[in-house]
Amino acid sequence: MITLTSDFGSPYPAAMKGVIRRHTDAELIDVAHDLPRGDPRAAAFWLRFVLPEFPPAVHCAVVDPGVGTDRAALVVRAGAHVVVAPDNGLAMPPARALAAEESDVEAWTVAVDEPASETFHGRDVFAPTAARVRTALDDADESTGDGRVTPSAVADALAAMDDLSPASDPVDVRFPEPSVERDGDDGAGDSTGDVVAVDGEVLAIDRFGNVITNVPGELIRGRDWIRVDGDLTPVAETFGAVDPGERLVTVGSHGYVECDVNDGRGDGAFDLRPGDSVRLVPDSVSL
Amino acid sequence: MITLTSDFGSPYPAAMKGVIRRHTDAELIDVAHDLPRGDPRAAAFWLRFVLPEFPPAVHCAVVDPGVGTDRAALVVRAGAHVVVAPDNGLAMPPARALAAEESDVEAWTVAVDEPASETFHGRDVFAPTAARVRTALDDADESTGDGRVTPSAVADALAAMDDLSPASDPVDVRFPEPSVERDGDDGAGDSTGDVVAVDGEVLAIDRFGNVITNVPGELIRGRDWIRVDGDLTPVAETFGAVDPGERLVTVGSHGYVECDVNDGRGDGAFDLRPGDSVRLVPDSVSL
Amino acid sequence: MITLTSDFGSPYPAAMKGVIRRHTDAELIDVAHDLPRGDPRAAAFWLRFVLPEFPPAVHCAVVDPGVGTDRAALVVRAGAHVVVAPDNGLAMPPARALAAEESDVEAWTVAVDEPASETFHGRDVFAPTAARVRTALDDADESTGDGRVTPSAVADALAAMDDLSPASDPVDVRFPEPSVERDGDDGAGDSTGDVVAVDGEVLAIDRFGNVITNVPGELIRGRDWIRVDGDLTPVAETFGAVDPGERLVTVGSHGYVECDVNDGRGDGAFDLRPGDSVRLVPDSVSL
Repeated sequence: MITLTSDFGSPYPAAMKGVIRRHTDAELIDVAHDLPRGDPRAAAFWLRFVLPEFPPAVHCAVVDPGVGTDRAALVVRAGAHVVVAPDNGLAMPPARALAAEESDVEAWTVAVDEPASETFHGRDVFAPTAARVRTALDDADESTGDGRVTPSAVADALAAMDDLSPASDPVDVRFPEPSVERDGDDGAGDSTGDVVAVDGEVLAIDRFGNVITNVPGELIRGRDWIRVDGDLTPVAETFGAVDPGERLVTVGSHGYVECDVNDGRGDGAFDLRPGDSVRLVPDSVSL
Repeated sequence: MITLTSDFGSPYPAAMKGVIRRHTDAELIDVAHDLPRGDPRAAAFWLRFVLPEFPPAVHCAVVDPGVGTDRAALVVRAGAHVVVAPDNGLAMPPARALAAEESDVEAWTVAVDEPASETFHGRDVFAPTAARVRTALDDADESTGDGRVTPSAVADALAAMDDLSPASDPVDVRFPEPSVERDGDDGAGDSTGDVVAVDGEVLAIDRFGNVITNVPGELIRGRDWIRVDGDLTPVAETFGAVDPGERLVTVGSHGYVECDVNDGRGDGAFDLRPGDSVRLVPDSVSL
Repeated sequence: MITLTSDFGSPYPAAMKGVIRRHTDAELIDVAHDLPRGDPRAAAFWLRFVLPEFPPAVHCAVVDPGVGTDRAALVVRAGAHVVVAPDNGLAMPPARALAAEESDVEAWTVAVDEPASETFHGRDVFAPTAARVRTALDDADESTGDGRVTPSAVADALAAMDDLSPASDPVDVRFPEPSVERDGDDGAGDSTGDVVAVDGEVLAIDRFGNVITNVPGELIRGRDWIRVDGDLTPVAETFGAVDPGERLVTVGSHGYVECDVNDGRGDGAFDLRPGDSVRLVPDSVSL
């Protein structure tokens, strides 16, 4: 299996599929091709969310604002998964999520011949690399004959590929941690008291306009009301708990606090965009 | 084969595919993931139109405004097809269209463990259920060895699944029938005279802005002009019969009367939205 | 393998897939379903770009403003590829790109029974035709037993299909050639001097608003600045060479000169639309 992710829209990903089909009959599954344009950080967020649902696979992910520059092409092993992507940080957060532990992530640089184009490395570099990695893993699979490639077999197969060399310092994206203020905080930040306030950041906006923050859902567990940048907002498990058009705070399927509107757009209602800071203050008001 | 339908946009359906791939290698075919948000009635309309084109398959359809509430999860057998969907009505119209007769539709409720999320049952409930149903059918298929599962074999396979129990009263969507006035109508509505007027309803708007009504195409057969809410409009078999930007009435591939604009949007030109009533009056004007 | 291309949006292509699945288990790959509506010329441009990346396949392409009229349905062989499409020109440019030489392109007309609808020949004519062609090729493949159908085997398989007859004069789209003015031109146009000016045409606009012209990239090789309709614009290999929001001229992955904006839309900034003429004048200014 090869999954495909990009910000290319159509019909560009089909060109990648054609190239792959010249090398291998592996199943192709689209993750998304309408990711925010040229934004490796957003791609890293979504891939970290989606890819761990898959059984071991090769994941070809191309959101590549540096196409045509000398940024490297990476092959990143994460357990028995492999991510093929430009070296701009998008591969590392999903790789950490795919691996059982961080030490089970290793990155390789692809030796790339002069590609056919300066602007479509999805077709000219990443698709053929993903196809060759897939073929190498399938060959390894056949040689062991057990239908499932182990992490060490994947590592061996990659090590045997002539055009891969260990990547010394791949670009990484680390998502910011929210700053949490608790009852009884003495400045050391080690209080286990109730959460008084959280200063978080907007990680992404989804298709529905839901504002996804970096605040873990457990920090608001048991709360009924939260002030979002000062505005009192109900906390609910489901959209249907508030009337259409009304704002709510909920915990999304990724486990993070979202600022949403039932049957509307949270990004507009809360005036929040990716990268914006957002302050969440639990409120004990009872209305 | 498992078909997938939702209002999720991307990349959420890929998470469902990853979950399914942990259970089965069955082929995955996307029907649509950009259906009108949170509108089970629109989903029912489109699925009733599309699913009958398929050979027997498992159809996983998630348009689910009640996610996180206690609405049930359904498995609906329709002949040798199975629809897996929330119990909000969307499954029943396509199930009736898929079954040879209405008595060949039977609904089951899925016993659902506490799902991993309150907001993404597509991933946490419906995808794994579809995968398990698919596996159960494939096992039944293997046991009979004939490559095609019969309706009764599907029924037996579902009855043998521990976590299914008969659904007593699944939510249903029934599309309204238009009201037809004919020459010689005496109020009993049993006249077979010419159609004088039809009071219908807008069922859906497609991507092109075509306004799809609930009026069967045969009611306007042979007519050249129709008043749509009073406005005289030509009837044509093809868009090209009128100039770009001009309005027309035609019969769509689903067999219903559409109010369209050649190379434009019918919903804007006719000022019609889903659920609106629309009056069609054949006119014998010759221009 | 069958590739699918249309301007249908969703969920219409799924109906085509269902129909195909009643005939064959061949792999289905989507090229695009959001091509410019009713524009066979744009479809021809994109298919000419994408389809040659694929190994031999059946390509079902339906952008069909003449649906319901008496335009023919075509099956076009191009080497070992087959394009199934309405006879409106869209098939011929990709067919020439798929064939080793123009003489290896041959067109057939499909004898079509009265289709089920006047408006959805994608489902009622082209999908079943593509499925029958695919099956005929797979049968031919099986009979020779070599896993890859040769152009002559494809030709034989098509010739053996009862419902195909040679197409005498299929509609064709020819993309305009740009007019090139060179140093030392004496009016005969055979100068090999430096390019002084090129009068081209806009062939297409992609999802990002990039303006794709018919001017081959080699005509601007080595230039740093070009006047686009009079406005001085930097030539760059990559978007990142200019600041976000700034205009640039580059050579796209299809080999043609594009007029783009980094992190913005070229069609708006240059005020260019498909079919517009555009004058490119290399400038030796050094800023």
